[in-house]
Amino acid sequence: MSVEVSANVRLQGRSLIAGRVSADSNGTVFYGYDPSHGQQLETRFCSATIEDVDRAVAEATDAFVAASSSSGKERGRLLRAIADGIDAAAAVLIEQAHRETALPRPRLTGEVARTSGQLRLFASTVEEGSWVMARIDTAEPGRTPPKPDVRSMLRPLGPVAAFGASNFPLAFSVAGGDTASALAAGNPVIVKAHPAHPGTSELVGHIIVAAIAACSLPAGLFSLLFDVGYEVGAALVQHPGIRAVGFTGSFRGGRALMDLANARPDPIPVYAEMGSTNPVFILPGALQERSAELADGLHASFTLGGGQFCTKPGLVFVTKPLAGTFVERLRKATESSSAFPMLTGGMASAYKSALTCREMLRTAKGETVGSGFSVPSVLLEATAAEFFNDTSLSEEVFGPTTLVVHCDGPVDMLQVAHSLQGHLTATILGTKRDIEQNAELLRVLETKVGRVIFNGFPTGVEVCHAMVHGGPYPATSDGRSTSVGSQAIYRFARPVAYQGLPESALPAALQSANPLRILRLWDGIWSADAKG
Amino acid sequence: MSVEVSANVRLQGRSLIAGRVSADSNGTVFYGYDPSHGQQLETRFCSATIEDVDRAVAEATDAFVAASSSSGKERGRLLRAIADGIDAAAAVLIEQAHRETALPRPRLTGEVARTSGQLRLFASTVEEGSWVMARIDTAEPGRTPPKPDVRSMLRPLGPVAAFGASNFPLAFSVAGGDTASALAAGNPVIVKAHPAHPGTSELVGHIIVAAIAACSLPAGLFSLLFDVGYEVGAALVQHPGIRAVGFTGSFRGGRALMDLANARPDPIPVYAEMGSTNPVFILPGALQERSAELADGLHASFTLGGGQFCTKPGLVFVTKPLAGTFVERLRKATESSSAFPMLTGGMASAYKSALTCREMLRTAKGETVGSGFSVPSVLLEATAAEFFNDTSLSEEVFGPTTLVVHCDGPVDMLQVAHSLQGHLTATILGTKRDIEQNAELLRVLETKVGRVIFNGFPTGVEVCHAMVHGGPYPATSDGRSTSVGSQAIYRFARPVAYQGLPESALPAALQSANPLRILRLWDGIWSADAKG
Repeated sequence: MSVEVSANVRLQGRSLIAGRVSADSNGTVFYGYDPSHGQQLETRFCSATIEDVDRAVAEATDAFVAASSSSGKERGRLLRAIADGIDAAAAVLIEQAHRETALPRPRLTGEVARTSGQLRLFASTVEEGSWVMARIDTAEPGRTPPKPDVRSMLRPLGPVAAFGASNFPLAFSVAGGDTASALAAGNPVIVKAHPAHPGTSELVGHIIVAAIAACSLPAGLFSLLFDVGYEVGAALVQHPGIRAVGFTGSFRGGRALMDLANARPDPIPVYAEMGSTNPVFILPGALQERSAELADGLHASFTLGGGQFCTKPGLVFVTKPLAGTFVERLRKATESSSAFPMLTGGMASAYKSALTCREMLRTAKGETVGSGFSVPSVLLEATAAEFFNDTSLSEEVFGPTTLVVHCDGPVDMLQVAHSLQGHLTATILGTKRDIEQNAELLRVLETKVGRVIFNGFPTGVEVCHAMVHGGPYPATSDGRSTSVGSQAIYRFARPVAYQGLPESALPAALQSANPLRILRLWDGIWSADAKG
Repeated sequence: MSVEVSANVRLQGRSLIAGRVSADSNGTVFYGYDPSHGQQLETRFCSATIEDVDRAVAEATDAFVAASSSSGKERGRLLRAIADGIDAAAAVLIEQAHRETALPRPRLTGEVARTSGQLRLFASTVEEGSWVMARIDTAEPGRTPPKPDVRSMLRPLGPVAAFGASNFPLAFSVAGGDTASALAAGNPVIVKAHPAHPGTSELVGHIIVAAIAACSLPAGLFSLLFDVGYEVGAALVQHPGIRAVGFTGSFRGGRALMDLANARPDPIPVYAEMGSTNPVFILPGALQERSAELADGLHASFTLGGGQFCTKPGLVFVTKPLAGTFVERLRKATESSSAFPMLTGGMASAYKSALTCREMLRTAKGETVGSGFSVPSVLLEATAAEFFNDTSLSEEVFGPTTLVVHCDGPVDMLQVAHSLQGHLTATILGTKRDIEQNAELLRVLETKVGRVIFNGFPTGVEVCHAMVHGGPYPATSDGRSTSVGSQAIYRFARPVAYQGLPESALPAALQSANPLRILRLWDGIWSADAKG
């Protein structure tokens, strides 16, 4: 199946509703920006209207019937068609995204591969089919009272609203993890594009539309809405037809969506990944053994992508007597660091003002001269006492900075661990002996985060079956979920039981003959056998 | 292991905090009632105080360390000890529960078995161990960038608040499904007892305390708090140490808890099962073939337990030309029905006032004379037009009544199905031909409920692996969950990933050698093999 976006495609700047380009509206007009020079780009984008939202939801609601009764193979075919379309358009996408985000081309090349790879991971998950957690308890007519035949499996929720994230113009955007996992589970998706990369969003939107058409699926499965403000997003989350929300972005944005969803007459789940400070604990053995390697690795991690990752290590705890050479090297690396362009002018201002509040803690600063939305890399340092006395120091600063906190020893570190709120990740850098001596630290940290990393850095979130990119509030709105990896599909499904249904009326996954050859819990025993 | 409650145990009327009987407090005093005669029972119960709540949560927080690092085998042992204790005390529990609820002894005998059976189902689930959904993606050091070793599994959430339900003094109460599933997942539990059966609650509380002691587990794993009002429940749900809430009861109560939990600085999940009207669709073929059997079955189902089940069929849709003999028989069964004692005086009043509002629809009424909190069985009838014009008719009436809605045909029924809110169940009574001719009805209903029943009645919720006792809002607060069956354990766990950890620091479920011999997703393939 071939889905192509030509290299000289002309951006139209309009929302895509169920496959059709929206008419020019009275909605607010906006433009993308080139962050390297701070310049407005040429295409004029129209914000969607409330009528557009209504239309997109109505189309999605109609398409839900087909989506929810489609087979895993059919949905896999769609996801692969989107992935192929993205790979085929890689060059165009990378150029457009580079223009709108100033993210380096090699990084964007990797992100294209991540995005199509992610779509194919969900395709293989639903093609294989066991993800539906089929459970079958057969009847015992002889029992008193008779035991009924009960069979259950996961079914899709209904139309999902997904919000593009600013910092991943592809992998967490229009065809990103939220869209891929929601479609995989059998839900229609309406994406609210992030206004920081509208052109990239539009290109990907056309790829999805073409893939749906190529698979002869209903166009209402997907819509893409633009908005430079908050109205369209709010209207989506409050719309009676929307059944769940996926979001990656700021704490403020995520919490606002949670509150809107909870205030509905019928509250719906919001999966908001709201970022975190990702504490790193460097234990004495590691500090002694390889401080230079750790300093270089940490510097690379906190400045990667201009520090604009939700997994950026923003808090680093070291023990005093041994931290000297480590911190010295980190300072030098920071001082010799070039300036980094931020994704938007607003992010550059927020970064500068956060650092102004932390002026006293600044010990090293990289190059400050840079064009457009560029900001310098900054190293902050504090004592454990200062850290405990000022809760604002544990807040996320989006950008190329980190805070090194000098602890007196393991007791301080344990106290820090106990005091942490929810984070996406926690990292322990140590020797094998360190980890044996700090078993309690690991035990406490696993109650605070979605992922514990040993001798690695939190940036770089592998898209795989075991990944958990989540964590207790306020890292996410729902610590029982992950937004990366194949388990992300579980966010958009719910179990439904069928009692006493004739075989012919059962979904294929629950028919005794097991036509899909999936793993099922049959009378309490997991098996992929055909039965009955 | 022997856990015994003597037949002549003296009720103390005090909360149990981490194994210790609470001191007499200034809390409000209350008493149980005998619903058969409307008389106050002898034991004086003291409501817990806010200090009691704080103490119980502090003890639970301390106990969480031990609970979360305990093995499935250890937790299975505890659940079996509680089950054995309940079975051993069956006679005492049945008498006490009968005194406080007026539920018939045979029903309570069944409920004891359901309660201990449920505990043993969770015991076997955690002893077997595969429920943790272990996922292992091994490292590929050669890849660019290197692929890390990532392993994830479900881990407990932390202290859980569980609310006893009025209508199941054992199976949905102190050692009911919420407590059993939360303990099974490795969480401490604090139960807020329902004031309609405080004596039964206290007896079961002592059994749990004794079982915890016999298993040498920390006493803080369990506390039982009494309160005749709402203060203790509200304080629990708002307490920073509580990580999740389980509740079965009214829509008003459940929604209040949801709103409290969502208004916390750190919102927590609330699993509230808030009841439903459980629509029943009787299709023409069945009506023609076996109207007498259907009428008798329906009458038995809507009056079972005095109609005080969340799965009571409260809405019955029939097609006009064929419904005559069916409805006639239903009327006669209702008229010859004895009066039913309601669980509390408040419920009896609510039932009577709901029926007063529906006076015009009343077509048959059973015996009205009954002592205590007794109420008559009532049959209501309406046309489809009346039903569509008055949304209050789809609201739940707790008690022995149901509403028969006369539809013109399958189109009316489909319109009804589309208009439904979330329910726990939907039932189709029909022939095989009926279901073939009404495929769309089934497809619409499965999007509205947690369980679809064919040729059965919704009362009688089998405790098994495949059961889903849930459904979209407003049936529950969270349609992605079930409160009955082994899948209920998933409410109280979240995934945690471990990246790059040495084998010795990994939980047993994630060690390559697979010492627990559980099913795991190893590099994308489900297997119970030992590896590495």
